[in-house]
Formats: sequence, C-alpha cells, structure tokens
Amino acid sequence: MVSFESDYIAGAHPEVLRRLAETNGEPLPGYGTDRYCESAKEKIRAFIGMPDAEIFFLSGGTQANAVVISTVLADYEGVIAAKTGHISSHEAGAIEYTGHEVLEVPQSEGKILPETLEQYLSAWYADENHEHMTFPGMVYLSHPTEYGTLYSRAELTRISEICRQYHLTLFLDGARLGYALASRETDLDIAAIAALCDVFYIGGTKVGALCGEAVVFTKGNMPKHFLTSVKRRGALLAKGRLTGVQFDALFTDDLYLRISRHAIGMAEKMKGIFRSRGIPFYIQSPTNQQFVVLENSRMEKLAEKVAFSFWEKTDDAHTVVRFATGWSTTDDDLLTLDEALKA
Amino acid sequence: MVSFESDYIAGAHPEVLRRLAETNGEPLPGYGTDRYCESAKEKIRAFIGMPDAEIFFLSGGTQANAVVISTVLADYEGVIAAKTGHISSHEAGAIEYTGHEVLEVPQSEGKILPETLEQYLSAWYADENHEHMTFPGMVYLSHPTEYGTLYSRAELTRISEICRQYHLTLFLDGARLGYALASRETDLDIAAIAALCDVFYIGGTKVGALCGEAVVFTKGNMPKHFLTSVKRRGALLAKGRLTGVQFDALFTDDLYLRISRHAIGMAEKMKGIFRSRGIPFYIQSPTNQQFVVLENSRMEKLAEKVAFSFWEKTDDAHTVVRFATGWSTTDDDLLTLDEALKA
Amino acid sequence: MVSFESDYIAGAHPEVLRRLAETNGEPLPGYGTDRYCESAKEKIRAFIGMPDAEIFFLSGGTQANAVVISTVLADYEGVIAAKTGHISSHEAGAIEYTGHEVLEVPQSEGKILPETLEQYLSAWYADENHEHMTFPGMVYLSHPTEYGTLYSRAELTRISEICRQYHLTLFLDGARLGYALASRETDLDIAAIAALCDVFYIGGTKVGALCGEAVVFTKGNMPKHFLTSVKRRGALLAKGRLTGVQFDALFTDDLYLRISRHAIGMAEKMKGIFRSRGIPFYIQSPTNQQFVVLENSRMEKLAEKVAFSFWEKTDDAHTVVRFATGWSTTDDDLLTLDEALKA
Amino acid sequence: MVSFESDYIAGAHPEVLRRLAETNGEPLPGYGTDRYCESAKEKIRAFIGMPDAEIFFLSGGTQANAVVISTVLADYEGVIAAKTGHISSHEAGAIEYTGHEVLEVPQSEGKILPETLEQYLSAWYADENHEHMTFPGMVYLSHPTEYGTLYSRAELTRISEICRQYHLTLFLDGARLGYALASRETDLDIAAIAALCDVFYIGGTKVGALCGEAVVFTKGNMPKHFLTSVKRRGALLAKGRLTGVQFDALFTDDLYLRISRHAIGMAEKMKGIFRSRGIPFYIQSPTNQQFVVLENSRMEKLAEKVAFSFWEKTDDAHTVVRFATGWSTTDDDLLTLDEALKA
Repeated sequence: MVSFESDYIAGAHPEVLRRLAETNGEPLPGYGTDRYCESAKEKIRAFIGMPDAEIFFLSGGTQANAVVISTVLADYEGVIAAKTGHISSHEAGAIEYTGHEVLEVPQSEGKILPETLEQYLSAWYADENHEHMTFPGMVYLSHPTEYGTLYSRAELTRISEICRQYHLTLFLDGARLGYALASRETDLDIAAIAALCDVFYIGGTKVGALCGEAVVFTKGNMPKHFLTSVKRRGALLAKGRLTGVQFDALFTDDLYLRISRHAIGMAEKMKGIFRSRGIPFYIQSPTNQQFVVLENSRMEKLAEKVAFSFWEKTDDAHTVVRFATGWSTTDDDLLTLDEALKA
Repeated sequence: MVSFESDYIAGAHPEVLRRLAETNGEPLPGYGTDRYCESAKEKIRAFIGMPDAEIFFLSGGTQANAVVISTVLADYEGVIAAKTGHISSHEAGAIEYTGHEVLEVPQSEGKILPETLEQYLSAWYADENHEHMTFPGMVYLSHPTEYGTLYSRAELTRISEICRQYHLTLFLDGARLGYALASRETDLDIAAIAALCDVFYIGGTKVGALCGEAVVFTKGNMPKHFLTSVKRRGALLAKGRLTGVQFDALFTDDLYLRISRHAIGMAEKMKGIFRSRGIPFYIQSPTNQQFVVLENSRMEKLAEKVAFSFWEKTDDAHTVVRFATGWSTTDDDLLTLDEALKA
Repeated sequence: MVSFESDYIAGAHPEVLRRLAETNGEPLPGYGTDRYCESAKEKIRAFIGMPDAEIFFLSGGTQANAVVISTVLADYEGVIAAKTGHISSHEAGAIEYTGHEVLEVPQSEGKILPETLEQYLSAWYADENHEHMTFPGMVYLSHPTEYGTLYSRAELTRISEICRQYHLTLFLDGARLGYALASRETDLDIAAIAALCDVFYIGGTKVGALCGEAVVFTKGNMPKHFLTSVKRRGALLAKGRLTGVQFDALFTDDLYLRISRHAIGMAEKMKGIFRSRGIPFYIQSPTNQQFVVLENSRMEKLAEKVAFSFWEKTDDAHTVVRFATGWSTTDDDLLTLDEALKA
Repeated sequence: MVSFESDYIAGAHPEVLRRLAETNGEPLPGYGTDRYCESAKEKIRAFIGMPDAEIFFLSGGTQANAVVISTVLADYEGVIAAKTGHISSHEAGAIEYTGHEVLEVPQSEGKILPETLEQYLSAWYADENHEHMTFPGMVYLSHPTEYGTLYSRAELTRISEICRQYHLTLFLDGARLGYALASRETDLDIAAIAALCDVFYIGGTKVGALCGEAVVFTKGNMPKHFLTSVKRRGALLAKGRLTGVQFDALFTDDLYLRISRHAIGMAEKMKGIFRSRGIPFYIQSPTNQQFVVLENSRMEKLAEKVAFSFWEKTDDAHTVVRFATGWSTTDDDLLTLDEALKA
C-alpha cells in the first residue's frame, strides 16, 4: 500500500546506502574516530558556514534531545518547551529521566511566540519564591515544529535575544531541519539558524538516513568530555562509521537539500490535491507534514488505499490526520492518493 | 513584629518540646527503631482507625513527596497533579530529580476536579501513541490545597473511584492535614481519607512539630525495603527519636487536633477582621491560610506592623497576600492585625 | 594497514548489507513494529529453542546493559559484576547513571567463580546492617568475558542455582556471544544459556552487524511497558527496520554461526602463529580475542605493519596487547601478521 | 541498660536542648534565613578561621554526602573513596542514586594512603581508554574514619597536593569531626583541615545535636544556587531554625569541643578498662569508637549487661564489636562496663 504515514517509512536514500556499501570493507577505528566522521563534520561545518563548530553524531531524536539537554543544563535548571513540543509530550519522559523538568509554555501553531517566552521569564524572575522553583536554563524549539510550521527570521532573532538577556541556551531540534530549509515559505537559512542558536541538530533519520542526528554546538560550547557523557548515556555507537558515512553522503553534492527539496515539492503537490478535493487543512504547514481534517467515513474509506497517521479527533464526526512526504515519495504515490480521495 | 507569614514561623508546640526534653537522656536505638517511633505509629493507627496501616516518618514535605512518588511509581509512570500543586511548582523539580514526570492538569481553586481527571485519563488512553508518552501512575492531591481549599467527600470519593478504574495510586499530601480535619466546612474525616487514599501523609512541620511528616500506607502497600529506599535518598535520620517523640506527643491527648482547631479558630476570627475592614478575599478558604487582595499602598503600610506573605499581583495596583495562623497565633496577634488594618 | 584492533573495525557482513539494500525501498512502520523485526524474533526464538522468549532490539552493548539492568532492578538493588566486567570498568558509569550501584566482586580470568559469588552473598546477608546497604538484585556475566574466556556448563549451572536461591536475576552480556558458541572449547550451547539465564543478549555489532543487540527475556519476564522504558532512555530507533533486517539476515541460513566460526577459525590459526613465533599468551582464550605479551621494542616494530590494541603494561619492558578476529579477517591478514612477526 | 552502641543513642546535649527551648516562641523566617542560622555560620567561620567560608546546614550524614558529591561533580565524574568508606558501603547506594559512581580504592586502617591515591590516578590517566571510564573528580575521606582512625597532617597535606595536581575536589566527611579534633593523638587542627580541603562537614548528629551537619565550602566554591539544589533533593528544612539554633549552641562557649573532649576522655578510660581486662583491640583508634575482639561466649554474656555494636566475625569463635562514647557517657557507665567484663 502507498504510505504517507511518516518520513521514516523507507530505508536510506540510495546514495546514502551506496556509500555504506562502498566503504563497508575498510577497516576503521571505532567510536566516531574514523575519517568518514571527520569528513562529514568538515562538510557540515562548510554547509553551515562555521569552521569551528563542534559536531557529534547520535542515533535518534529523543536521544539527541536527552543527551544535549542533560549535559548542558545545570543541576537546578529546566528546559522551556511548547506544550506541544516533542520533549513535552511524545518522548515518554526522556528529559525527566535525566532529572530535569520540562517547563511547558503555551504554544501557537506549535511554536513558542517570543512574547510568550518573555512573559514567562519576567513572571518567573518576579516571583519572590523562585529559589524554590526550577530555574529556566534553556529554550527548546523544534523547527519545523511538530505541526510542520516554521519560525520566521524575526521570531527566531527575537527569541535568541531573549535567551541572551536571560542567559538561556537556545536549542533547536532539527529532526526535520532539511524540510525547513527547503520550504518555499521560509526566510531562515542555515547560517542564520547556526548564528542564532547555541546548539541544534541536523536530523538524518527523517531526511534520508537509516539513523543519525548531527548535533552541532555553534559557539565552542560542547560540554567538556562530551564523548564520555554520551557513552554513559548508552548513546555511543561502536561502529561510529554508521553515522559518519551516512552524514558524509548526505552532505556530499548537496544531497541533504536535494532530498529535502524533493519532499517539499511532493508536499506542495499534495496540498494542491487536498485543495482540489475540498479537504480543509487543520493547520497551514509549509513543510513536508500536512495535517488535514477528514470526515470519519471518508477517512475509513481512504485508509483502505493509502496509509497515513491518526492525529486527533476534532469532533465525533471528524478527525485530524497527518500525511508526510520524504525522499521516497513519488508522483505515482500522489496519483494514488488523488484517486483514492476521488473515490 | 507579629507574624502571619506562615505556619512554620514558630518552633514546636510546647507539649512537643516538653516530650523531647523528658525523653532526651534515654539511650535509644537509631534509625526509627526506638519505642517512641513504635508508640507514635500505634497512636496514629488508632487515630485513623486502621490497625494495619504502615507508617514511616520523614523530615519534610518535599522529601515526603519525592520519596513516596519515586518509590511507588513504575519506571514508565508519572504523577498527575494540579498545575498549582506543590510538586508542580514549588519543589524546584524534586520529582523530576527522581526521574519522573509531573503530568500537570488544570486546577479549580487549587483542586483537581474529578471531571478534569476523567477527561485527562480518557484522552490519554485514547491517544494511539500513548506508548511514547509517560503513563499516568498516580494522582497527587494536596488537602488542604496550596490555596487553603478542601476536597469534599463526594469529590474525593469520585477521584478515588477513577483511580481504581485506571489502576492509579491515590496520594494525598497532608502537609497541613490537621487544618483540613479541624475545618468547620469539611465533610471529610480522617477515616474517610484513609479509606479513600492509598498513601497520604500527616504533616508535622506545619502543625506543631519542629520537623517531621508521618507517611501512611493504608493498604499493605508500603514499597518493599522502604527503609533502604529512604536511606539511599538521604532521608533517614540517625536519631529517629526526633520524629518519633514528636509524633508520639502530637498524637497524645488529641494534641494534633487541638493545635489544628486552635489555628482554625484564629483563622475564622481573622476572616471576620478582614470582612469588617472591607478587604476582599482572593479565594474562600476554610482552613488556616487566608488569601486577600490588598491595594498596594495599604499593603505597604500594613507591612510595617505585621508580617505576611506576598502571593501574586492581580494588577498594577493590587496584590494577593497570604496570612497563615498556627499553634502560636494569639488573640493579641489578631488585635494587632485589626489595629494595623484600621490605621 | 591490516587491522586486528577489534571485532568492530569493518562494516556489516556482506549478506547483512545485501538484505538492507534489498529491503530498503519497502515502506515499513516504525519503532520495531515492522515485519522484519517480527521475522528476526521468530528466527531467534527458533535458534534458542524458546518459542515464547520475548525479544527487543537495541543499538549497542552499553545501551543494552543500562536498559536491561535499570528496568529489571528494584529501586534498592544493585548488580553484581566482576571487577573486570564491562559495566564495572569501561562504560563510563552508565549503570550508575541510571541510579544503581555495581557491586564489584573479584574475578578469575575475567570470570566470577561460583564460590566467589556464594561467599559474597552469604556475607552480605550475614551483615546485620544490610538494610543500609545496596541489595544484590542481579548477577551480570559476560560470555565470552572481556578476556575472551568462557564459563563452563558446570559453572553457569552453579551460578544459576545460586541466583535462584537468592532470588537474583541472571543476566548474560553476549556482546560477543557468537564467538562463545563457535568456540572449540565450550560445552555451553545456546539452549543451555537460554535455560540458565533470565535475560541475555545476542550481540550484533561485534558479530557482523552495523549495530544492534538482540535482548532476550527467557521467562516471560520482559519488564512491563518495556518499549516505553526504552523510549525514555533514548534507545528506541524510529527506523526499527535497521536492527530488524540485520538480525533477520544474521539468523537466516545460520549466518550468525558462520560468521562466528570463521572468526574462531582465524583466531585458532593466529594462536598457531603466535606459538610458532614464541610469543607468550597473557591468558588462554578460546575465542576471537587473543591477548599476548610483547617486548616493547617488538611491539613498536610490529605496530608499523599491523594494527592491534594496547591492553596494559606488565613491566617496563613488556606490554599486553590484544588481537581480535572477525567476519572480515582473511588468511592474507594472518600471513601479513606472520611476516611482520618474523621481521 | 548502659549503652555504648553508638554516638547517636542519646538526644541532644542539654545546652543544645536549652537553646531550642529558649528560642522556641520567636517567630522566625523559614528555610535557613533566620538569624540563628546566620549567627551559627559566623561562629563556625570564626572557629575554622575562615571569614569567607560558605556554610549550609543539612540534616544527616548520608544526605550531606549525597548533596555535596552530586552538586560538585561534573556529569562524567565519580568520587574516589576507600572500600570501607561510608559512601562505599553503608549508604545503600545513595551516591549512585544521584547518578555518580563511587570509585573504590584499597584502604589501610580505614584510610586512603597518599601513595594508593597516587597510583590509582597515574594508572587511570595512563589508560588509553579512559574516555570510556568514569573520570575521577573528587576524593572522599572520612576523618575520623569508619574505624576511628585519623589522617596525619602529613597524609592530608600530601593528599591535598595530589588533588591539586589532578584537579580533584577534596571532600572530608566530618560526621564525627569533633572526636578527631579532640583526640590526644592528632596533629591536625581545624584550621589545617579547612585549608587543605575544598569542602567538609562538621557533624552535629553524632556530636551532641538532635540532627544536623554543617557543610563548609572553604574556597568560594559553594555550587551556584545551592539552596535550590538542596531543595530539589528534599533536603531543605522549612524550620531551618532547627539546625541553626543547634549549631549556634554547639559553637557557643566551645560546646562542640567540650562535648568532643568529654567523649575522648571517656574513650581513653574505656581503652584502659579493655587493656586491664586483657581484651585485644582490633584496631588502634585514637577517637571515640573502640573496636575490640571478643570471644563469642564472653560477648554473649557481656551483651546481657551492656549494649554495643556487632561489627564482624574474625573466626568462628571471635567477633569484632564496637563501643562508642558520646556526650552522655558517664564514669558510671564505664564502671558498669568494667564490672560486666570482670564477671
């Protein structure tokens, strides 16, 4: 069956897989010390325009979030996140497992608005009892958000300023970063993101890799002995080549952006299909995840032909569902969707 | 200066102090194995009408919350609490420090309404991704709440039923339990509380002791090797007599209730004073904490004569402040308050 | 350069890689729910002869150890391990990170002898203060050990009996399990291991996979909601296919044992070379890791031609070094080694 | 029965209790912000001769160890301790509960010898794999040790130098510090201890208080927002006066040393009694804990008249037992002991 269930339904992009095969026989040292890891880091530094950025490869998004947050925060600090942020709701308490509180703030289309952040912080510091409260130590944003939406350059700039003012680390979860960069409706390029954030990651799992996220510390701020901290969180791969070779491939010949642009192109076509079929959008998403509202009967019929993700009920008769595109989405897949919607 | 700042501004009730002095010279074994601890437990069992209840003495409220919650919850579980619950807001992330998430739900006058709880749980289990979310494993209530309000028998009964249905432990934070029991507006006696909850604690620190909370497991459900778990959380006193003797005194000749009734009597008189001085209440509290709204200028003048606690601003000109009574509050203190309000 | 540095210097065994490529385009659901994960589990169940075993795929050895130990132990329990055990010494405190103590006991050639275990446990329970001590809750063995040695059937049987007697979980770290099974000097087959242990894992990373360990709970004892616990430790791969397909390949046509036998064969030949060159063994290892003692000058010269691992100094003039074989070791590699030793 | 079971069998020294009673009625702010806490800190600063020392009062020894160690260590660090150190063996894994490893080193009469420490550290840094190991970040000493023995000035000076060299925090557990200072066989005064250590605590529980340990940071090195870190570990008393008043009393008119000298005087007399009765010492202790070897039959008879602590068996016929003195030990108690030994 044609599937739009997620952007991690397929394996690796063929170019990634090819590089894994080509390098497979080479003896390489372990734990991320091989030359492919080095080469991948160099290419990423060039991509973001920061020759001194410190980079570390991890396996997945929840792992990257937990490792970064728990190594950067001080003991008495927590991380501010939107109520709909991945760490707030869908990581099974992975941040709390590390001993730190997620300080949830209201969201707007999946985003933390700068004014929301500012209000939260000024109220926090105004509270005379704040020594009995978790100190805010970091702001966590996802870009794109869990709803596919994007921060504007003005928003991210303002949030970054607020973080400076309150001495907070700004951390951007880029599990789907490629789709943000390739979106036709963004004014935020990778250089701006790298300049405005203290740490972010470039998602591989959802953008063409089998696994892997490249965590980037932009300001000489990688925590000391980070490898040891990664090791003791069970997050250090013996065959570091697995992530090194993949990211080396993703950042060769612009593959990361090519994959992302393809998925965005497919998503734009998909939006056209939904529009032409009169299906309302739950939210306006300029990236590869599309949320639409379906009548339950239509949803059930559609589910016989194409796979998608249940999101939430709006009322007894309607449901929000998600369709995601990725490197493997084809025009044929979209045709099938269009046909299925017609029926 | 006369102080209504809190119910922990004074030392121990004189009868408690007297017993500490009388028993001071006796050689006693350590770590809670002495005969005063045993005697205190027996008296508490009689008080709550549960001859088989398991009881453990800890030093303070945050400690009691963290120890109970972290030993009762399974790895994958979190605790549901009102957004205004003490563990949600004023324990500096003590629950998260133990690795568990506090699942915040909306509050009404400091309480979790049964319907709120029910909605939260049914929505949680309806979510198809709930294996990627923290499982609700416990409900945390404070009684009185942080706003001095009380659950009714009907409310607690309904919440208890919901907990049974969803296999949740019902935990009641009784840091100020005496004031709930002694309130003139409660229909919940200690027997009902003990029957409806799986674990609760009887606060000593805020009801006449120097320190100490009596944690009560009502259903043969004290976690196995609880003493060892307490020890490894740094919460086991070598001189266990310190809490044993105090609770033995508090549950001799009804002292716990006498202290509580005294504070409630003082609070009722204080309410009369506020009413007669035309000062609006922020919330209707039937216990020993009273929250009123003062004009800022009046608040500043008052602060020269009596001490109280800042709570929160309502607008630029008004502030919510808290006045608390306790075992040491006297009619003279109230007279001073009344005079100060007149001025 | 020819490398014997470790058994994780090469990529995946070609048959594993081929299956990754063949299945790459298929849309599959995430998080280990795909049919390759299911098929791999079925094949592993058949391999160990336990149709009801519960199996979960994780990424690496330290992760597997930390996840298993922290989800199986009760709050007040620690895990017994040899002083040379991987969790004791080379996981950067990964077990302590989860809040649990590693209870180190003396080792003999990398193993815990049954009598050592028995003495430790009887002394522990004889201690009148043991409620103030970490309770032993599990025994951790590695098989092969960090020194390549193996438990005999008699030893493992006796250890298993002691674990039953003291209600301890017996956990076997099988990061290199294949090399134990394929050894010419073992009387322990997989069925015996599965029967005697409560949980063990079948290492993939060091036996032909790019990453992955198959954790096997043998007695209906997988911790409840294990997936959620894995998720909150950051150990759940979105593309679960990555481990599923690899283990499906490893347990197709006996590949896991073929790889292991090949490495053992190479190791046996390597032992012959060392013997013929008069190089003393540091320890008698019947598996794929060989530890020999080299004069420092010889070691330095050798290092120009072949790669190996530094282990420890024996005195100022001699060093223990490790040579490991794996799926990619060839007769030519051994020839190079032999030549280099001659020079 | 006369008891030498421990130095925490009696309540508070009468002067401590008197001050608790005298100050009981005063309204005081909570959480350690009262004037008795301030006064006590000033007196302790004068006592140790460090006007800028930072001091925090906690409830007990295990709590003090866990709070200090977990707030001072970096994520990737552990604490070095003697195998017989309290944190290694009798705190039920309280340090591991905070996520940190205790790095056990061999002991000599309960002490870490400087050369043992040096060997451990040079070997650690020589290990090429040390990034996969827990970094040593702190040295934990107890003074007196768990066997009543004392570090000499030369030993502590050398250990302090080693700590400087390797950038380790030197932490001294002074649960019984008074008995070290009052010993007739010490050349280490409080000024030297304060100068050589980075952090230590002055034990109250075992030296005349009902509870309480004064943690002293000597070098402007109290962790930032320490109160918040203490709070989130459940270790902050609401009525901070409880420890403040007690330490204020202990450091008024030399009470802390008077108590300690009394106990030492009693211990010296007790040693004379054992000597005169021909009872061999297990270890030569110059402080308030005495360890002797008794024939089992004699031990059983003695136990009918006086209480003491079982320590360990030496063989089937002999047992090591501990006798401790404290503020409440009297000449009459010793007479009873002498009589009982005669019988």
